[in-house]
Amino acid sequence: MSSLENNFREIIPYTPGEQPQFKDKVKLNTKENPYPPSPKVMNKMLDYNELKLYPDPTAEELISAIADYHGVSKDMVFAGVGSDDVLATSFMAFFNSGKPILFPDITYAFYDVWANLFKIPFTKCPLNDNFKIEKEDYYRENGGIVFPNPNAPTGILMPLSQLEDILSHNRDVVVIVDEAYIDFGGESAIPLLNKYDNLVIVQTFSKSRSMAGMRIGYAIAGKRLIKELNTVKYSYNSYTLNYPSIKLGKLAIEDDEYFKNTVSKIINTRERVKKELSDLGFSGTESMSNFLFVTHKNIMAKDIFGALKEKHIFVRYFDKPRIDNYLRITIGTDDEMDKLIAFLKEYINK
Amino acid sequence: MSSLENNFREIIPYTPGEQPQFKDKVKLNTKENPYPPSPKVMNKMLDYNELKLYPDPTAEELISAIADYHGVSKDMVFAGVGSDDVLATSFMAFFNSGKPILFPDITYAFYDVWANLFKIPFTKCPLNDNFKIEKEDYYRENGGIVFPNPNAPTGILMPLSQLEDILSHNRDVVVIVDEAYIDFGGESAIPLLNKYDNLVIVQTFSKSRSMAGMRIGYAIAGKRLIKELNTVKYSYNSYTLNYPSIKLGKLAIEDDEYFKNTVSKIINTRERVKKELSDLGFSGTESMSNFLFVTHKNIMAKDIFGALKEKHIFVRYFDKPRIDNYLRITIGTDDEMDKLIAFLKEYINK
Repeated sequence: MSSLENNFREIIPYTPGEQPQFKDKVKLNTKENPYPPSPKVMNKMLDYNELKLYPDPTAEELISAIADYHGVSKDMVFAGVGSDDVLATSFMAFFNSGKPILFPDITYAFYDVWANLFKIPFTKCPLNDNFKIEKEDYYRENGGIVFPNPNAPTGILMPLSQLEDILSHNRDVVVIVDEAYIDFGGESAIPLLNKYDNLVIVQTFSKSRSMAGMRIGYAIAGKRLIKELNTVKYSYNSYTLNYPSIKLGKLAIEDDEYFKNTVSKIINTRERVKKELSDLGFSGTESMSNFLFVTHKNIMAKDIFGALKEKHIFVRYFDKPRIDNYLRITIGTDDEMDKLIAFLKEYINK
Repeated sequence: MSSLENNFREIIPYTPGEQPQFKDKVKLNTKENPYPPSPKVMNKMLDYNELKLYPDPTAEELISAIADYHGVSKDMVFAGVGSDDVLATSFMAFFNSGKPILFPDITYAFYDVWANLFKIPFTKCPLNDNFKIEKEDYYRENGGIVFPNPNAPTGILMPLSQLEDILSHNRDVVVIVDEAYIDFGGESAIPLLNKYDNLVIVQTFSKSRSMAGMRIGYAIAGKRLIKELNTVKYSYNSYTLNYPSIKLGKLAIEDDEYFKNTVSKIINTRERVKKELSDLGFSGTESMSNFLFVTHKNIMAKDIFGALKEKHIFVRYFDKPRIDNYLRITIGTDDEMDKLIAFLKEYINK
């Protein structure tokens, strides 16, 4: 068997957040939406007889709905099995120069995993002491750039003017902006697509659109970049989105009223909880996402994490340099957040 | 833009079969099952409220059902978004030695596409004049082996004794046997897993299990190979199978009676149609799959293909060396096949 292993790819995989199975849990560790999908989705009867046929490889219905929603043409949209699939496909498609790609040292933990998987060299640019991206770090020669906006796990939003500075300094490489959390208070870079043919914007149905269980993500970019993403897709798996994803995804994106309503509930809860956490001695970043990134003035994050877990309240803790005294707390329903706050009040004042 | 393209991956994508949209079509070009999924699937109400949460990344329910069905342990099963995803992941995981991998010259058209995508060198071993795999071609030094059994588009089955000869000559590399069509008359290599730790068997829900629209494929192999496939999966996309795939896939595999019944209907139709085509002057391989691979004694395959297409009867034609006078015809319902035969009778005798 040992010689067999010489054929294996050498990699260190990404560690996803825990998926605890307790019935009474409060699950605030994987940035899911606490509200169900739109009633238009909930009430749809799928025609399972369609399952015998391959799904439309172009996912035309879904792609059209996304294009219409964002006011772009259909050939500017690419869809995949969650934004992870879209991002991984983008890494494969666009980061082949041999030069190191650039991304923040504190960011979505999948970027270096994909770079390793596809043997793409990379350099991590440290966030500054306020956990902000320094745009000048991205002015050096590179093979491409990727960062989330807002960034994770900090939730900090980069203003579009700064983002444009990074784009204009990098016209010869692809810049991927991962907008997984943009709907919770940020401004999308989509209008910059008119000016920058090197920009790829990635969004997801998993957070603001309450459909993590369906696995739908998409990219918006200029036609030539989308064509390239499709070329890689058709070289990997012609039919990635299944029949339910195409049908229900379309319905979800069409119900804009429901979407705006749930997003605004989450924002309200976030601001309320931020205030309450502050009263309990927590401080943190100015999060524009569906999570808070906080540290306590006296108690170690790891200890709070452990105490919460014992009560089946799950938040995310990263045992990593610079952020190992922080917790990332997903915004749940008001009821779920009340349970969290009630426990913390008791725990901190005991 | 031209310098931007220097960063792109150089590839030639796979061309999937046409998905014609005519209402009155007879679609025999993409090897789909003409029968709907099991009534257990058709009658299942999914709880769409679950869609707000990420699906189980381990797809435990589905994996358990597959493991139970095949009488193997859960850690011997890996699942993905169709067998294409499972095969592509296997290429990434197992074909990293730098030596050329081996596969037939006439076979599933995705193998060389994946090899190109992942920059894996490869050598194609020509089928013999009867379109059979010559096992001795696979005794040379190599970086891995992959072939379908039965092979596509020929439908020819390799006896397990020959398959074992290939395995025993290649103990130091991974041998992938793509059993997409095994249920239509072949014998699975699963029992050989006890003896060969270098064997990966790939199966799919898209053909015999009537669920092409759901995109479910799986691999069965020894624990160490499955662990390696999971490592690559968790480095690419933690949550590949969505909530409906996990739930409905489980139900589909559990209904063995329905499965055996539809498979046997397809086999009966195949044998009947083979005889009728023979009466019309067609000959072909001894197909053990859900398609026939036939050539006509007088009329060029390309002409027949075009004539059928005009009548909205879609079969597959490959404009490739050695097989450019053959048609691949999926076995549909008896009614669909009657339409095909009726047209051919008229066309050939005109």
